[in-house]
Amino acid sequence: MITDFDVLIAGTEPITEKVMDKAPCLRMISRVGVGLDSVDLLAAERRGIRVSYTPDAPAPAVSDLTVGLIFSLLRSVHMANAQMHRGEWQRHFGRRLSEVTIGIIGAGRIGRRVIHILASLGVSRILVNDILERPPIDPSVKLKWVNKETIYRSADVISVHVPLTLQTKKMICREELLMMKRDAVIINTARGGIINEHDLAEVLQLGHLSGAAIDVFEKEPYSGDLAQIERCLLTSHMGSMSVDCRTRMEIEATEEAIRFLNGQPLQGLVPPEEYDLQRQGVQ
Amino acid sequence: MITDFDVLIAGTEPITEKVMDKAPCLRMISRVGVGLDSVDLLAAERRGIRVSYTPDAPAPAVSDLTVGLIFSLLRSVHMANAQMHRGEWQRHFGRRLSEVTIGIIGAGRIGRRVIHILASLGVSRILVNDILERPPIDPSVKLKWVNKETIYRSADVISVHVPLTLQTKKMICREELLMMKRDAVIINTARGGIINEHDLAEVLQLGHLSGAAIDVFEKEPYSGDLAQIERCLLTSHMGSMSVDCRTRMEIEATEEAIRFLNGQPLQGLVPPEEYDLQRQGVQ
Repeated sequence: MITDFDVLIAGTEPITEKVMDKAPCLRMISRVGVGLDSVDLLAAERRGIRVSYTPDAPAPAVSDLTVGLIFSLLRSVHMANAQMHRGEWQRHFGRRLSEVTIGIIGAGRIGRRVIHILASLGVSRILVNDILERPPIDPSVKLKWVNKETIYRSADVISVHVPLTLQTKKMICREELLMMKRDAVIINTARGGIINEHDLAEVLQLGHLSGAAIDVFEKEPYSGDLAQIERCLLTSHMGSMSVDCRTRMEIEATEEAIRFLNGQPLQGLVPPEEYDLQRQGVQ
Repeated sequence: MITDFDVLIAGTEPITEKVMDKAPCLRMISRVGVGLDSVDLLAAERRGIRVSYTPDAPAPAVSDLTVGLIFSLLRSVHMANAQMHRGEWQRHFGRRLSEVTIGIIGAGRIGRRVIHILASLGVSRILVNDILERPPIDPSVKLKWVNKETIYRSADVISVHVPLTLQTKKMICREELLMMKRDAVIINTARGGIINEHDLAEVLQLGHLSGAAIDVFEKEPYSGDLAQIERCLLTSHMGSMSVDCRTRMEIEATEEAIRFLNGQPLQGLVPPEEYDLQRQGVQ
């Protein structure tokens, strides 16, 4: 489809070396969003194709969705809703945010924002893990930097906010899921495959974990076992799908494409670190 | 069932004059919760039955649930979840809290708390209505006191936090619902019947309103038309059902009953204003 095009404004479709081989005119890719797992940066580099993205725009919408999913999971709103629509009346006991320990894996743009929202809601026990040491977080926020295993073992709510790389792919499998508290809940609004979907379905079916909320999947549109599990709250890769963020992402990506075509300096170029990560085979 | 009892620790079951007539030993009612629509205070007064309640305990859990429901409605989480569990993939556009105007009807213990949470989440457009003039709210919170009609006509999210009285019963009927914006959402975690359920179902079926979240019903357990409407998020009177609040409510109500039996001063006596309201036929 992109054979004749000079510039591609791209969603999350895979833009592999093979795709680029069929697009001899392509000189620039402007990603609507932040994830670069779909773009072969090194293949682009070899062809002199410049790649830009909109790393900041999706964060507010993704973090809002994440916090909303945490609220739903803690009060079993999704379970009650399904039951009520079947004519069943069952009152679920829940937990308040101030009663739980929350573990955040990945303190980048989105993870940090989730942490700030939770702190403003009065969550006092926040555990954080990141590949980088102590990225900037408002010093008034009380949190504890820990390793991932500590989060798996002691958090009541675990939310992942890491990019999809070779290191994070299937980061959470059966073993990690079984380390978690029996009544923990887990949320993935980052990228499909960071939590092994098959293992998650199996572990939930065993009766472990009190719930999960999954917005992203290895293969989208998703059709798999998680859809059979009522306490698994499923959404359809809607993290960035708020009117304001989506608009901002699309305008930013389009403006960048126009800047490129007008020969103006680009403002959203993917930084060299992202290329290095792919070069090191991390991504 | 209560024929022989001196003290009743009561849920939301109706405790009418007829019930009291069959309970000649009854000297005290200790309500677990804040609503008094279920207790005939005047009949109790005539019999010298003292009535206590736990007005503060449920507020944190109810307000948390309310905020969670607002998040879900604004992002259509309940719709996506139902669709995903049927194997359908449909991405819903949503709105962020900072994009909407929120109307709160009733600024008592729970309404005020909801307002504070929303303000801390960055909601800048909050409209408030209450029967009393300007109850105490943190002056740093930006809000506008308006009449109910202004809320109906201009809010994107409308949440009711009033007690059930003769004045508030069916306060929101077809006419009020149709005043609301076509894509507004409405939440009732207060008491069943404040929003006319039948009218709400009809208006939703007409295609008006983008969603509703109803936790309380005229007759519970609920079975009615709202269960047929997917964009109506239903929960089963779970407002106070967090472990911490429920525990606090039950301990407080039990301690009050023990104080009564030990002849100690009561701490949660229902204030005279509540009797006056029932005397004036308001409740």
